[in-house]
Amino acid sequence: MALEKKKIAIAGIGTVGKGLVKILEQFGSEIPNLKVSVIASRKKIRLPKKKIFKDTVILNDAKKLIKFEDYDILVELIGGDDGIAKEIVINALKKKKHVVTANKAMISKYWKDINYISKANKCSIKYEAAVAGGVPIIKIIDEFLISNKISRIYGILNGTSNFILTKMLTTGKNFNEILKEAQKLGYAEANPTFDIDGIDTAHKLSILSSLSFNVDSELNKIKTEGIRNINLLDLKFADSLGYKIKLLGICEIKGKIIKNYVYPCLVEKDNFIANVDGVYNGVVVESDFCNKSFFQGEGAGSFPTATSVFSDIKSILDSDVSHLKKLTNNKNIQFSKPEKRFGKYYLRFTTDDKPGVISGIAKEFKKNNISMKSMLQEDSKIIKSKDATIVITTHDCEEKNMIDALVRINKMNFIKKKTVYFRIENF
Amino acid sequence: MALEKKKIAIAGIGTVGKGLVKILEQFGSEIPNLKVSVIASRKKIRLPKKKIFKDTVILNDAKKLIKFEDYDILVELIGGDDGIAKEIVINALKKKKHVVTANKAMISKYWKDINYISKANKCSIKYEAAVAGGVPIIKIIDEFLISNKISRIYGILNGTSNFILTKMLTTGKNFNEILKEAQKLGYAEANPTFDIDGIDTAHKLSILSSLSFNVDSELNKIKTEGIRNINLLDLKFADSLGYKIKLLGICEIKGKIIKNYVYPCLVEKDNFIANVDGVYNGVVVESDFCNKSFFQGEGAGSFPTATSVFSDIKSILDSDVSHLKKLTNNKNIQFSKPEKRFGKYYLRFTTDDKPGVISGIAKEFKKNNISMKSMLQEDSKIIKSKDATIVITTHDCEEKNMIDALVRINKMNFIKKKTVYFRIENF
Repeated sequence: MALEKKKIAIAGIGTVGKGLVKILEQFGSEIPNLKVSVIASRKKIRLPKKKIFKDTVILNDAKKLIKFEDYDILVELIGGDDGIAKEIVINALKKKKHVVTANKAMISKYWKDINYISKANKCSIKYEAAVAGGVPIIKIIDEFLISNKISRIYGILNGTSNFILTKMLTTGKNFNEILKEAQKLGYAEANPTFDIDGIDTAHKLSILSSLSFNVDSELNKIKTEGIRNINLLDLKFADSLGYKIKLLGICEIKGKIIKNYVYPCLVEKDNFIANVDGVYNGVVVESDFCNKSFFQGEGAGSFPTATSVFSDIKSILDSDVSHLKKLTNNKNIQFSKPEKRFGKYYLRFTTDDKPGVISGIAKEFKKNNISMKSMLQEDSKIIKSKDATIVITTHDCEEKNMIDALVRINKMNFIKKKTVYFRIENF
Repeated sequence: MALEKKKIAIAGIGTVGKGLVKILEQFGSEIPNLKVSVIASRKKIRLPKKKIFKDTVILNDAKKLIKFEDYDILVELIGGDDGIAKEIVINALKKKKHVVTANKAMISKYWKDINYISKANKCSIKYEAAVAGGVPIIKIIDEFLISNKISRIYGILNGTSNFILTKMLTTGKNFNEILKEAQKLGYAEANPTFDIDGIDTAHKLSILSSLSFNVDSELNKIKTEGIRNINLLDLKFADSLGYKIKLLGICEIKGKIIKNYVYPCLVEKDNFIANVDGVYNGVVVESDFCNKSFFQGEGAGSFPTATSVFSDIKSILDSDVSHLKKLTNNKNIQFSKPEKRFGKYYLRFTTDDKPGVISGIAKEFKKNNISMKSMLQEDSKIIKSKDATIVITTHDCEEKNMIDALVRINKMNFIKKKTVYFRIENF
């Protein structure tokens, strides 16, 4: 038999923890001898009257798990990159206990360390729930596509910001209005910084990139932009040009160069990812043998995330072989700098409504080797402003050249507001 | 360690077998001590000069595997529901060897028997490659959603017929023309019966239904219609009504009643599944904890299918615990009869171009408790015919009533051709 380890410790009974207790209540009896030996929870909890929770010890402080030995698998659902979550995880691994966690902040930050420690102690660390709750993307990369070389992954990894972008376009309301609605509906937190500034997406992208390319894709090397400044106008212009604006995490490897980006960008409406709306998450994986695969599901929430956690527990119960691969020798790998990006752009200029504006922009583009693909000029009467609005899309060019051109253009006297730009991704 | 079993036997080197040999060549070295001890192939083969193929015995007849003992996992890639494929699989299981197969015909037909035999012998039978090659749908149902109750699965499970339907609409050519093109491109076989008559879809649906609902969803209980008689006209009418016509496999459980259907039907354009075009496969899984999850990828082809096969091999290497669940007691389960379907319909009538036609149809509908939702009449000059074309969509009604009404309507003297009808699915 693969297993004597059948006792689980649960640390943290928040949204996901409650979902897990419910799943264990409903499904736990199908796995004989599985027991929850201990739960650490600051708040008082009432456990269902089921065999699986018989004799469960309740601790009021997760710290007490450090000296608690009677478990085989730690399920860490506290969260946070440092602090008690990290402490009990490292402690468990060193005690040769397996770990299941939903903690994206910790896994993305300490990918390498946790990887080494679990390997050294011959036990598993599993974190399906850390990325896209209801989409088994970790399992897909780590088990299904195990024989494939992954070349690129891109996806909508944050439901909150996707809900906001979707709702802005469908209701015609602006960012702040929709953010308030999302907060009322419980789709956005009181402090929405992590979600709307792309940090949550960067955590998840870091994990996907590390796992897919088998390197330590550190968070601080990921160029990250959020959706705080997205203007309804740009969503509409993008729509009329055949695009949707989505906050994407993108990681890519070519030879020894890895690109890790998080930013809102334009994607063609017929791309899989453009049709992922609302709180859904969606991920496209490109690999040598399977080409493009696409996976979509609820990204967060109590039950989809707890489904992931339970799937990880089950997987450890069924197997005692760690799936961890050796880290690729980092020496030869380079992380691409953002200014090296080569691609298309969408630009919205707010200018004086007078002749000579286009030629001024065009001249600066020419100097920087940028060529226009389309141009669209809104009559200043339509958007009720004294200013003219010019939307330009470009052919492929280097980001550095684009930034240089924009710095100079923004200083020109016909420019009324700082020019808005987004990258266009043609996957 | 989970495993001493590290020798694999491959039976059949066709499209998938060649893909598997390539994957083993590229990736096999990452799994120490994995060896291909024997390959059965009618045609002569040349193996790559890799350690994994060192000392591989080549048999010119799969029958010889019956008396061959030196392997731990049989990889059956011959195909066919009976005959040698079934013989060597049963033989292997009885010898307590694990089995990986891509054989949808055999698994769908002998689901129950193979399940019992592998259980009795405490070994695994795995068949990820049997359904939607590049989509890990078996793993998702069996491992990721293990704690979820699945209520419905629907999907495009056959790339050939999806390619034909997609191409008909985009090129405006009729069924026979596109079928010929598909045959030239290698997307359809010389004898395309299995693909276009829905049999291949029914095989796969039977497996998904059996696995999800844990019962023996026998093939002969699945109502199966194909796309042979699909008219370009209907694809266009559906398009103008906001639908696409897709060949779907649908399985659903409500209480103790299971529905298993395979037919072309209208789905709303904004449904995930409506955007699965070309040779792609796509599957939606509805479950209690994860709501809707959607998975899309290449459905067939050498490498996506071999990726599935390899993933199954790896999974057996990592675990010695069989995932098989007990079959639900079949006594209480009922398979719903097709005529019990309750839903919407699309109908195309070809009639005399004269007054009284609509009222004649409407009268018969009323008698059968069917109410119209929309009506669209094409001027006979537009489609260059003496006949009139009337397209009607209905509200929900019972299939039995619809069939009764159509039998009577088709006998009316203003009806010029047998009325075409499709089900509309509102997922």
